[in-house]
Amino acid sequence: MADYMKEFHPTPRLLMGPGPSNVHPRVLQAMASPVVGHLDPQFVQVMIDVREMLRPVFGTRDGLTLALSGTGHAGMEASFCNLLEHGEKVLIAVNGFFGQRMTDIAARVGGEVHLVESTWGKPLDVNAIEVELKRLGRVKVVAMIHAETSTGVLNPVPEVARLAHEHGALLILDTVTSLGGMKVAMDEWDVDIAYSASQKCLGSPPGLSPISLEPRALEAMKARKTRVQSYYLDLVTLADYWSKTPRYHHTAPVSMFYAFRESLRMLHEEGLEVRFKRHTRNAAALWAGIEAMGLKLMVEPKWRLPQLTTVLIPEGVDDVKVRSTLLNEYNLEISGGFGPLAGKIWRVGLMGEGCYPSSVFYFLSSLEQVLTRMGYELPIGEGVAAAARALADYASSAR
Amino acid sequence: MADYMKEFHPTPRLLMGPGPSNVHPRVLQAMASPVVGHLDPQFVQVMIDVREMLRPVFGTRDGLTLALSGTGHAGMEASFCNLLEHGEKVLIAVNGFFGQRMTDIAARVGGEVHLVESTWGKPLDVNAIEVELKRLGRVKVVAMIHAETSTGVLNPVPEVARLAHEHGALLILDTVTSLGGMKVAMDEWDVDIAYSASQKCLGSPPGLSPISLEPRALEAMKARKTRVQSYYLDLVTLADYWSKTPRYHHTAPVSMFYAFRESLRMLHEEGLEVRFKRHTRNAAALWAGIEAMGLKLMVEPKWRLPQLTTVLIPEGVDDVKVRSTLLNEYNLEISGGFGPLAGKIWRVGLMGEGCYPSSVFYFLSSLEQVLTRMGYELPIGEGVAAAARALADYASSAR
Repeated sequence: MADYMKEFHPTPRLLMGPGPSNVHPRVLQAMASPVVGHLDPQFVQVMIDVREMLRPVFGTRDGLTLALSGTGHAGMEASFCNLLEHGEKVLIAVNGFFGQRMTDIAARVGGEVHLVESTWGKPLDVNAIEVELKRLGRVKVVAMIHAETSTGVLNPVPEVARLAHEHGALLILDTVTSLGGMKVAMDEWDVDIAYSASQKCLGSPPGLSPISLEPRALEAMKARKTRVQSYYLDLVTLADYWSKTPRYHHTAPVSMFYAFRESLRMLHEEGLEVRFKRHTRNAAALWAGIEAMGLKLMVEPKWRLPQLTTVLIPEGVDDVKVRSTLLNEYNLEISGGFGPLAGKIWRVGLMGEGCYPSSVFYFLSSLEQVLTRMGYELPIGEGVAAAARALADYASSAR
Repeated sequence: MADYMKEFHPTPRLLMGPGPSNVHPRVLQAMASPVVGHLDPQFVQVMIDVREMLRPVFGTRDGLTLALSGTGHAGMEASFCNLLEHGEKVLIAVNGFFGQRMTDIAARVGGEVHLVESTWGKPLDVNAIEVELKRLGRVKVVAMIHAETSTGVLNPVPEVARLAHEHGALLILDTVTSLGGMKVAMDEWDVDIAYSASQKCLGSPPGLSPISLEPRALEAMKARKTRVQSYYLDLVTLADYWSKTPRYHHTAPVSMFYAFRESLRMLHEEGLEVRFKRHTRNAAALWAGIEAMGLKLMVEPKWRLPQLTTVLIPEGVDDVKVRSTLLNEYNLEISGGFGPLAGKIWRVGLMGEGCYPSSVFYFLSSLEQVLTRMGYELPIGEGVAAAARALADYASSAR
């Protein structure tokens, strides 16, 4: 019998990489519900529910909010190909792999791409963005990453949004790693279009890319001189599908929407603020533990993402061996670095359903064991002790 | 409590529209398996298994076969945007809605689009295609639909493939409604690129678009002068992800792949030929039943698709009322016509897990009841009796 004819039962992993994160059994089970048609009133209601539940997460009161039938990269591509026309100027603020990916996608769309680069691991340089905007004159779009998944850095959104609008540009914001794990406030910050992915802090499997547009972005799309290069990602026609009398556009991935509805419902049961605090609290415990082990964090506290921590790999430690040992022997997934950070950092996620104290303790203890086995000396037990103290501090301050 | 905060338990439907079709509990349950990372060796093995199981279904021995993280439309878009460059000529053979959709997508990609149109409900006119190819001179791509989902018509592939290659063009074949339900033979017919969708005869939920490329198509992609306009659908970079040492491209929808692997496994357990015959046999019963009720089929027998039957709506019968009554009171989904066929036909699917005698009988009896309630006269009981006779004929001829 060919291997592919055998039953498949994946060994469960604790997913502490940059996503996908672990998915709650309620969300997994929702996918096992019977599939109905993509135009069935029952499914249309699911789409409406998803929209209603997404809006407060994006911090928009009445944006055009929907979920694309693709993963986060589809959201990135949709944002650029709907807003940009051939030859139009776009300024992309880059301080990591996903900012770079934006420049690739904007160039494929045919935009005239300009960059403002900052060091990977540091936040974006708002002054440099202002200087470049003044130099460039008319720019159609400014784009940036809110939470840079490749470095664990939080970027300043309101400042860049203000600059973009002062120069007549629209702002595209990537919230792939931030949405559901920290505050995203499209209305308050004046963001024109933001997209994300289902599998990080939102707690669904990968497969959907939530996206939200404010009126200014919609007007720009309707004023286009040329058609959007992609049918699949054309947001104006997709909006006709996402209406009370839906017009066929494509066959939506029904089961993914079942999962997504359930994960959003769990988010609202918990409450946005409570979830954000859960991320902050467990990250503080993780950071305390890592530092107590004598390891160093890459990002300074002010710009550090709670949901994705970057740890500097100590001199002489074999990155790949540590990660593969954690995966194969501890069923614990963490991730390495991209590009200039390959071999230099580990990326440790605490997202959504994976963001609990048990994850923090298991990671600290497992890493300690693996490093010790590899001959690296560190103060045994200090990591988990420091994490416990950090949690106790939170607990006592919450009395 | 807001409605969206309530539990959601969809009322199961018998899905006899043009897809999605019903999904077997084994496949639904596979989606409830724990999510692992998109680069986890366990998941890489799932991708390899999917490739191995897809190849015989596409009729290719060693094509570059994979599944895109999108629905069928993503496959259509990927085919055009990877093969066509700006200003290159493409000839599209159109005899229905999805052929038309191809012209929309090819135009967005920037191709110089030429059409050969045939009547909706009739097969493509091979002679007209030959005449147009001679007139046009150098054409980069010829494209056609194998099984036109909007009309229930089978189109002749080998003849068009031969013509395309005689004129130096590549052939794009849409197998969205055919793959897994009838013979698709890329090697034998000499098809350069074919794509499909997971939710029709393959028996998965919607969300993946299997696609396969032969060497000629790959060479054409590698010889491009310009980059593919889409990052998300760039097949050459996707091929690096679909390798034994996968390079990160995007986060694949892991749970959808679990489902797809299980549905392909079920297909191979049953056997391709056995599954094709099941479709033919149950369709014959459906056709006999419909005609015994005094209704007419739109497509002549030679070009009729077993997996999707088009029924002419009798004069004076309210299309929408019949379909909404079937859906709401009988939990039975069938579909109406598109464009010039709106209000004129019903589309009745017998695909994958929905293609069983129970579906045939339930549909015939339910339609009979609804038409009778609406005052339309027809010979009661004749439909199911004729279907039973057709099945008995098959059973006795199989002795």
